[in-house]
Amino acid sequence: MSLNRQDVVRAAVDVLDRYGLEDLTMRRLAGLLGVKAGALYWHVTNKQTLLALVSDEILQELDDASRLRPDADPTAVGSQPDTGLAEGVRRWAGQFRAALLRHRDGGEVVASTLPVGLGRVDPAAEVSAVLARYGFSSHQRRYGSRALVHFILGHVIEEQTRSQLHELGVVAQFDGRAEEEDFTDGLELLVTGLRGLSADGTADPSRVENAEI
Amino acid sequence: MSLNRQDVVRAAVDVLDRYGLEDLTMRRLAGLLGVKAGALYWHVTNKQTLLALVSDEILQELDDASRLRPDADPTAVGSQPDTGLAEGVRRWAGQFRAALLRHRDGGEVVASTLPVGLGRVDPAAEVSAVLARYGFSSHQRRYGSRALVHFILGHVIEEQTRSQLHELGVVAQFDGRAEEEDFTDGLELLVTGLRGLSADGTADPSRVENAEI
Repeated sequence: MSLNRQDVVRAAVDVLDRYGLEDLTMRRLAGLLGVKAGALYWHVTNKQTLLALVSDEILQELDDASRLRPDADPTAVGSQPDTGLAEGVRRWAGQFRAALLRHRDGGEVVASTLPVGLGRVDPAAEVSAVLARYGFSSHQRRYGSRALVHFILGHVIEEQTRSQLHELGVVAQFDGRAEEEDFTDGLELLVTGLRGLSADGTADPSRVENAEI
Repeated sequence: MSLNRQDVVRAAVDVLDRYGLEDLTMRRLAGLLGVKAGALYWHVTNKQTLLALVSDEILQELDDASRLRPDADPTAVGSQPDTGLAEGVRRWAGQFRAALLRHRDGGEVVASTLPVGLGRVDPAAEVSAVLARYGFSSHQRRYGSRALVHFILGHVIEEQTRSQLHELGVVAQFDGRAEEEDFTDGLELLVTGLRGLSADGTADPSRVENAEI
């Protein structure tokens, strides 16, 4: 059988969904594909590369949704800047979380591959563009989008871990609706913070700080 | 040799600091302590219990710092509520991050054990008390402290992963000072969000929402 890279990635996502990140080993993957480990390394040089490809697969939907989306009406920027900013951040955050939740250990996979920098899809690309549209400086875009990504990954990792422990009978309760509500309410704290920066123009955070105290 | 639970936990933290979470196995720990695996299970029933004990050890400093701290002057609450709220959140967040950074994979260990609920130390206890002091409802305290914990864990996991990859030569750059700055600036977004709730009394977030749009 002639194996290509896409076959390997598809099988890896399948192992992830069925058994979780801990069981996603090169050895198990080779066994599943019916090839020797050597044949696998011909397609993906190491485990880090494999995880980056799996991470890209998880984030693909988010990327597609972002590309298909028509730009917000630019005339609305002047009249109701806050609503557009908040809406843009909320929509992206909801899609990011949904993409992570769609795969077992999705949060952990993306959290462990982002710092390696081998992935092709930047999950923060869309929200950075939203912030740019509302006049945020490159410094503000960097820490703003990082804070959003960290909050979302931290939330989803806890949510997925608890849900799995519940399936295993280790944790008595898991309430998906309460998780969603905490996510939405927590996100609003960050949205309010971003609006505060926006209302202040492109001020650096130390100025916002001094003005408020 | 007579082994007690504290010996096991101390050795586990040692393995973590030297080799990381992936190499913290019951087998390796037994080997290091010179006992059979069976002797180990007599002290800790399973890997989850072991990780919860290690997590408690990591969070111990945060817990101690919180107990030793004198309460903020209650007369200051009426006069300058925002400064006190912001200061309380910042101080706790800085100590939480510092405690996690002090141990290799500290963020990952705490993130993986929190949902299990076996740990003795609640890292959010202090910040929940700060929010209570400023009139936040129990609902607001829950999602507010969860959002803070998720942001901090998400940030530290990325920071520690990147730092380790840098040591291994996989990632070219790691700038600890830039990490700290992004952490501080990102935290301010959440602080601003919490201040917004506080300024609105104990309003539920949907009311804050409607008032602002």
